[in-house]
Amino acid sequence: MFEKILIANRGEIALRIIRAAREMGIKSVAVYSQADAESMHVKLADEAYCVGSARSGDSYLRIDQIIAAAEVSGADAVHPGYGFLAENSHFNEVCRESGFEFIGPSPQAMEKLGDKNTARSMAIANNVPVVPGSDGLIESPEAAIKTAKEIGYPVLIKATAGGGGKGMRVAEDEKSLAVAINQARTEAEAAFGNGGVYLERYIGRPRHIEVQVIADNHGNVCHLMERDCSVQRRHQKLIEEAPSPNLPEERRREICEAAVRMIRGADYSNAGTVEFIVDQNDDFYFIEVNARIQVEHPVSEMITGIDLIKEQIRVAAGEPLSFTQDQVKCEGHAIECRINAENPDKNFQPSAGKITQMFAPGGLGVRFDSHVYGGYTVPPYYDSMIGKLIVHCRTRDDAIATMRRALFELQVEGIHTTASFHDKVLQHPEFVSGKHDTKFVEREFLS
Amino acid sequence: MFEKILIANRGEIALRIIRAAREMGIKSVAVYSQADAESMHVKLADEAYCVGSARSGDSYLRIDQIIAAAEVSGADAVHPGYGFLAENSHFNEVCRESGFEFIGPSPQAMEKLGDKNTARSMAIANNVPVVPGSDGLIESPEAAIKTAKEIGYPVLIKATAGGGGKGMRVAEDEKSLAVAINQARTEAEAAFGNGGVYLERYIGRPRHIEVQVIADNHGNVCHLMERDCSVQRRHQKLIEEAPSPNLPEERRREICEAAVRMIRGADYSNAGTVEFIVDQNDDFYFIEVNARIQVEHPVSEMITGIDLIKEQIRVAAGEPLSFTQDQVKCEGHAIECRINAENPDKNFQPSAGKITQMFAPGGLGVRFDSHVYGGYTVPPYYDSMIGKLIVHCRTRDDAIATMRRALFELQVEGIHTTASFHDKVLQHPEFVSGKHDTKFVEREFLS
Repeated sequence: MFEKILIANRGEIALRIIRAAREMGIKSVAVYSQADAESMHVKLADEAYCVGSARSGDSYLRIDQIIAAAEVSGADAVHPGYGFLAENSHFNEVCRESGFEFIGPSPQAMEKLGDKNTARSMAIANNVPVVPGSDGLIESPEAAIKTAKEIGYPVLIKATAGGGGKGMRVAEDEKSLAVAINQARTEAEAAFGNGGVYLERYIGRPRHIEVQVIADNHGNVCHLMERDCSVQRRHQKLIEEAPSPNLPEERRREICEAAVRMIRGADYSNAGTVEFIVDQNDDFYFIEVNARIQVEHPVSEMITGIDLIKEQIRVAAGEPLSFTQDQVKCEGHAIECRINAENPDKNFQPSAGKITQMFAPGGLGVRFDSHVYGGYTVPPYYDSMIGKLIVHCRTRDDAIATMRRALFELQVEGIHTTASFHDKVLQHPEFVSGKHDTKFVEREFLS
Repeated sequence: MFEKILIANRGEIALRIIRAAREMGIKSVAVYSQADAESMHVKLADEAYCVGSARSGDSYLRIDQIIAAAEVSGADAVHPGYGFLAENSHFNEVCRESGFEFIGPSPQAMEKLGDKNTARSMAIANNVPVVPGSDGLIESPEAAIKTAKEIGYPVLIKATAGGGGKGMRVAEDEKSLAVAINQARTEAEAAFGNGGVYLERYIGRPRHIEVQVIADNHGNVCHLMERDCSVQRRHQKLIEEAPSPNLPEERRREICEAAVRMIRGADYSNAGTVEFIVDQNDDFYFIEVNARIQVEHPVSEMITGIDLIKEQIRVAAGEPLSFTQDQVKCEGHAIECRINAENPDKNFQPSAGKITQMFAPGGLGVRFDSHVYGGYTVPPYYDSMIGKLIVHCRTRDDAIATMRRALFELQVEGIHTTASFHDKVLQHPEFVSGKHDTKFVEREFLS
């Protein structure tokens, strides 16, 4: 087993990994930017190294500085968390070449799955349903129109290197497609340095359902059931839950098995998420694989009782998974609300600044994962998430009631947070019925 | 169901009850002393009434003031928590006579079980094993010597109205017994206004194991498994866990069944705890029934997934229990550490004062029940407990590791706490092996 792990990340996920390491008797090494010296991930790690100034390009994305910190500290492995360098296959490779185990999949698997077009081909090869669409990239508006005719309108234009909704467009007909395809290519080129786009059938009222998987280097691939992440604003997840409401048991089994086929076919090891879009008929279509731990992993931990970060560490150290698929049981219902330092009454404008006073909710069924505290200043340079509020109860109704209670209790003075917005969503009849889709928030709250 | 519950208590248990009420859609009414205006139980209740000055005799024990608050607020029930008036059958009766449902057993059951000697007779009548001892009170040193001969030395002298170790003495032989019996009577008379004492066989290296029970008014009596509370200092519990380590499965079944017999025989309703002493042969003997919710109830909640406070409220409102005995399953292992505002390096001297900064531990498997926060001043007038740190993991070893991690994370600046002492206990080989007894702390840490 490793003796010391460097965590190439910040905030709550860095703290999450420090917690797992400490419980396993492994030393942790934090890295931090000059803006993050007071973050709890720095205080609670066994060692901490400053890797640069506030801007992430000057610190958390500086591969050279992070490798130097790993070398100085004598770490034997690197955990990348999510975001920053987590899906950067070059960083993955540099870690391994420098003698540090990378806690994640191989650079090869990461690279293949990181390209959406390649991933789609792999899905097809592994008998995992995909949204009907273009076979490969679209080279011209003319080719797009031809392909769209086969797929049927409306169609969705997506950037092959994309994420977070950038380079994405819906076209209702030939005329709008010709315009949209050029816009999407320009946007993708600017955002990702890669203008490649492809077409898919556009699915109305879709749900976002994803399957948590983890594989070891001994041929074991297990899923930890699925999560519904349909409460989104501008393609950013706000609330995630497990199990998915209104998904028939048979479909749940099928989607989880499809995810396992995908991961097995990709020769993948460590934790990953296979994301699907699910339509009104409960038919599911592969979207992409996230080759890392995800923000919303706690809801799967709560319903299964399995510590995903510890399993990630075990797998990277060459150990087999500590459980078999048969031992994965779904108990109760879990919901996570991402608490962001944003003002929901002012179009979710970021709200950095000093937290003057704070009370973290507690009690039965409540988990709060956060690196902030009273007296801490939220820096303006990074993602606005300041914590994840997670509940686990016997039923979905109980989980909603407990989450509303916990949101009421959460006190973060001095800055704005999205807690009040979550409370509105949790009361909405569409959410309560579990029949919401990924457009729900925009349709009901933002229009 | 009730619309509004008054909570005749303070601190973490008041907050615990407020949480359950809020999740059930029931309004909560807090009462508070002048010293407690800033406590989180006051801030998070729907209404709050000051019932007097700092000293509990002038506030939390003022039945007239509490009933007045219930009347003014229009509450329809009263939850007494633990301590203060929780086992005061007169208060119980006054609540009911004033038209407020008392969330607990009947005054009659409370009164009978509150007298240790009566409770012992009830145990015998219900085929629940008791420690061999005197039948009733001991009238003179001569009678004590005669009875002790039958029981066998060493013997334990206990006050019939006692608690917290007061009026308790061990006698190794006839000579020490004659002296001790007079000391115990004098001490009991002074502490409880009742000098009645009785004799029991003294059990060396005893474990304290208790069974959580709850009964409704429809004839259902269920247990929620047992807890081990052997980590004690001066008869005050410090660490509690469930299930008990090193208790054979057959014995666990027997002790739980004995507790259910006791409760059924006492015509008891609502939550209660049947306490036992367990010897080196795993033989168990009844000690007493606590006719209220206990500090350590969360460990039973964690392993069973049942919210005991909600069940208490349901039962008091006349509803049946929401589960059957068959549905009570023990999942994983839970440990609770009582975090007290005391200085463990100075003989646990109380450490009231202002908490200048605080960080509450979080993450997988961690529950923190506390009414304090950064900026809050711990008043010197009450019990020193400022929070309960509870963990729930797959195994006992995992629970110990997670508790140690959580204790490391807990930061309470400005006052001393017992967190560091708990960490020492959790590392001790005797605790780790689960073979500790109620003398463990005194033997290993305080001598």
